[in-house]
Amino acid sequence: MTTTDTTTSGKREQAVTDEVVASFAGTKDDRLREVLESLTRHLHAFARDVRLTTEEWEAGIGFLTRVGHITDDRRQEFILLSDVLGLSMQVVGINAPADPRATESTVFGPFFVDDAPEVPLGGDIANGATGTPCWVTGTVTDTDGVPVAGARIDVWEADDDGLYDVQRDGDETAGRGWLRSGPDGGYRFWSVRPSPYPIPYDGPVGDLLTATGRGPMRPAHLHFKVEAPGHRTLVTHIFVAGDPYLDSDAVFGVKDSLVVDVAEHPPGTAPDGRALDIPWTGVHFDIVLEKAS
Amino acid sequence: MTTTDTTTSGKREQAVTDEVVASFAGTKDDRLREVLESLTRHLHAFARDVRLTTEEWEAGIGFLTRVGHITDDRRQEFILLSDVLGLSMQVVGINAPADPRATESTVFGPFFVDDAPEVPLGGDIANGATGTPCWVTGTVTDTDGVPVAGARIDVWEADDDGLYDVQRDGDETAGRGWLRSGPDGGYRFWSVRPSPYPIPYDGPVGDLLTATGRGPMRPAHLHFKVEAPGHRTLVTHIFVAGDPYLDSDAVFGVKDSLVVDVAEHPPGTAPDGRALDIPWTGVHFDIVLEKAS
Ligand SMILES: [Fe+2]
Ligand SMILES: [Fe+2]
Repeated sequence: MTTTDTTTSGKREQAVTDEVVASFAGTKDDRLREVLESLTRHLHAFARDVRLTTEEWEAGIGFLTRVGHITDDRRQEFILLSDVLGLSMQVVGINAPADPRATESTVFGPFFVDDAPEVPLGGDIANGATGTPCWVTGTVTDTDGVPVAGARIDVWEADDDGLYDVQRDGDETAGRGWLRSGPDGGYRFWSVRPSPYPIPYDGPVGDLLTATGRGPMRPAHLHFKVEAPGHRTLVTHIFVAGDPYLDSDAVFGVKDSLVVDVAEHPPGTAPDGRALDIPWTGVHFDIVLEKAS
Repeated sequence: MTTTDTTTSGKREQAVTDEVVASFAGTKDDRLREVLESLTRHLHAFARDVRLTTEEWEAGIGFLTRVGHITDDRRQEFILLSDVLGLSMQVVGINAPADPRATESTVFGPFFVDDAPEVPLGGDIANGATGTPCWVTGTVTDTDGVPVAGARIDVWEADDDGLYDVQRDGDETAGRGWLRSGPDGGYRFWSVRPSPYPIPYDGPVGDLLTATGRGPMRPAHLHFKVEAPGHRTLVTHIFVAGDPYLDSDAVFGVKDSLVVDVAEHPPGTAPDGRALDIPWTGVHFDIVLEKAS
């Protein structure tokens, strides 16, 4: 960490930081000023701590340029970068529910889309996504156990090939959708059993992982975003117990409370009456929303 | 600054940072590991210090995405961002010549191009750039005063409209070129008198300046990059004495030792015999290169 540096060069370097911080004095928005002053101090302290060379600065500019150029409507490499640097999980933690009874949150990730199709309660979000059918059930309640009816539940996941629909050519929506919890707070839908998958590693973030000897794999998971009036929006996943990547998630997203058992079932009739001539699976996940403050 | 936070949430947040830092343990390149560990610590400390909200994180991702998308072969918004945050000048300071006799350096800026045309000693780099003709002379020596012959001197500048050639449509090169110092270390060339100009402010960096009440102007300057075998490459500017923006450079690049007087001359014959029927100007700037370590 940088401590006060009283050498001549230390004072000169601190003077640069002070000059930049002072330049934000006229910012009308107090919060923006606070954020930019802190960002400036930490960014400068980083450069000073490592004695960043000109060539390294140039490499950083080049890296960010590549991140920017590979980012488009379907690929968000900046989120991926934030994820692999653990910044995303740090922000998740900073904004964690204060009430320990509430469901824990985790990374949003880069694969959410705003206009996913609505499915009815008990409907199927797979829509062509390959994989073993998975019946997902649970209830949405508040932290006092009161059911939350009509909560909007967005879910999205990768298919058996480890790909989200937006990673494939074409505009097919698969493995994503949203539904509303019923009058008793209950929800249920069909999906496919989640698979582990690599985050996209053919770009600069992948190069970073390679250079640091880190793997790109994420343990199998199903994304949830749950919104209800009067409650804090929850962004989370469920992870599959026993997954080999639970301890080495490329984006540091795993929390014990989010790991659920997946029940394996032989071909037969599912609880909703669906007849399956192949094995299927089931998971249960109760969701507890914190009240909005 | 973040100090050790012994609260439960503080420990939990530190644990995220520690986990990410540990993930770099397998990095083969020691220097890369050192840089990434420090970057992680400072980035996380920034988020924790300001209690960065999810919405602010999203705004940051959106901002960087815009910076990436406006950046192309002719516009480098990431360098501009580094410049207005003073990171560029911090890196310049960190890598400043150790020898106080050497010419001071300043920001590289986003407008250098690699393949500028060569001009002979005494030639004209204006090539259509508008503005009052300016005769630039000086010598290149080492810190012991020994002339450096054959140094490659790249120079570039904005025209009278405050624009670099790369900011205009078309592929015309103007206001830039390179030449070599003569056997006595002397150099001389024609250019145009530099003008103050705004950094490009029609993009996200401009929005940042507007939101913080900062102006986009840079004081008039002429860029130099000077390379010679056995010497450290110098990247610097000369600034024009009396410029109204010397104290409010948008990128914090001004150093007193780089401010030079511009002599004003009536129409007549210049020192190299050129006959001018309009007023012209002259500046003198001696360049002292540090020996390579
Ligand atoms: Fe995911
Ligand atoms: Fe410039």
